[in-house]
Amino acid sequence: MLLYDSPLAPNPRRVRIFLAEKGVSIPTRKIDLMALDHMRSDYARINPLRTVPALILDDGAALTETVAICRYIEWLHPDPPLFGRDGREQAFVEMWQRRMEFALFQPVAFAFRHSHPRLAVLEKPQFPEFAAVQRPRAVEAMRFLDGELADRAFVAGDAFTIADITAFVALELTKLARVEIPADLPHLARWRAAVGARPSAKA
Amino acid sequence: MLLYDSPLAPNPRRVRIFLAEKGVSIPTRKIDLMALDHMRSDYARINPLRTVPALILDDGAALTETVAICRYIEWLHPDPPLFGRDGREQAFVEMWQRRMEFALFQPVAFAFRHSHPRLAVLEKPQFPEFAAVQRPRAVEAMRFLDGELADRAFVAGDAFTIADITAFVALELTKLARVEIPADLPHLARWRAAVGARPSAKA
Repeated sequence: MLLYDSPLAPNPRRVRIFLAEKGVSIPTRKIDLMALDHMRSDYARINPLRTVPALILDDGAALTETVAICRYIEWLHPDPPLFGRDGREQAFVEMWQRRMEFALFQPVAFAFRHSHPRLAVLEKPQFPEFAAVQRPRAVEAMRFLDGELADRAFVAGDAFTIADITAFVALELTKLARVEIPADLPHLARWRAAVGARPSAKA
Repeated sequence: MLLYDSPLAPNPRRVRIFLAEKGVSIPTRKIDLMALDHMRSDYARINPLRTVPALILDDGAALTETVAICRYIEWLHPDPPLFGRDGREQAFVEMWQRRMEFALFQPVAFAFRHSHPRLAVLEKPQFPEFAAVQRPRAVEAMRFLDGELADRAFVAGDAFTIADITAFVALELTKLARVEIPADLPHLARWRAAVGARPSAKA
């Protein structure tokens, strides 16, 4: 397999953390988004939608979309389960993964893409006013998550899952997105420190 | 079980179509988004993030997020499989479901939410200029999908899946979003007619 990876982009990092949690290593090829590598015709043949990451399977098929790649890895390497164990748990992990994606990750990512000067090359046109309304939404999601984390260790329950990866990478992007994490969210801070201390956080 | 449903919203419709494809019927309770039912405190207790739909399980737990609800139904009623069969196929269905969600459904939904006068009560503030740039993105996704559908019956392959539901509901929303479907996309038109002729399309 071969993973098309971009060191600075949040979605490839979700996959790298997922792989690290699984203890799986895959050769990578770098796509430099700022150099518009993803707009070149050779990458369009791999992913016509031009998003990163992309995973080339051993039979040559190209699998794109962060969560789809993670599901494929989960299938090849079921332990530890990062999408839940039985069907009921998998539904709730999916719920939390999507809640983190739509309520937290996406507002932060939109704030970043629509306001950071260096992202003007990727997000055309940028709407700084749109970025501005994303920030309080992201903070609202953090307050919600803080309350949820008051009585459990991880986003979706007592076990680390893909929902933690999505939420953690979202928080990692807050600085570039100029989203301020409120200081009065102790459970969120405890969880973030715990996730940040895992070896996978370096991925 | 009990499904909190909103007749006019696209996400609850994805669940209704999914249930119809499974031949499953669940009692529903209506949430009128235009009357801001979802902002009332009794619904906040069910879903603090205030999105619809929500599924109340027999043990009282509330499961939210369209795709999470569909996965739970898939677990209870595996046939016909709408998320793929083996792990490899499930990864590609996930890829197509997410491609349809991020490249097609979301641009159409954003165009709708940020431009339709009646949606001003839900999307505050609306950014009509943001809506305007979503429309060509949605059309670009349609062109891509048309090419893909040239040599297969459904979005993710030879079988109908949740990716078809997401794409179909996106196209259904194009009129309200003022996204014009190009007339020169014959494969997309054939697929849309075929999906629209399924009994589930009435759900």
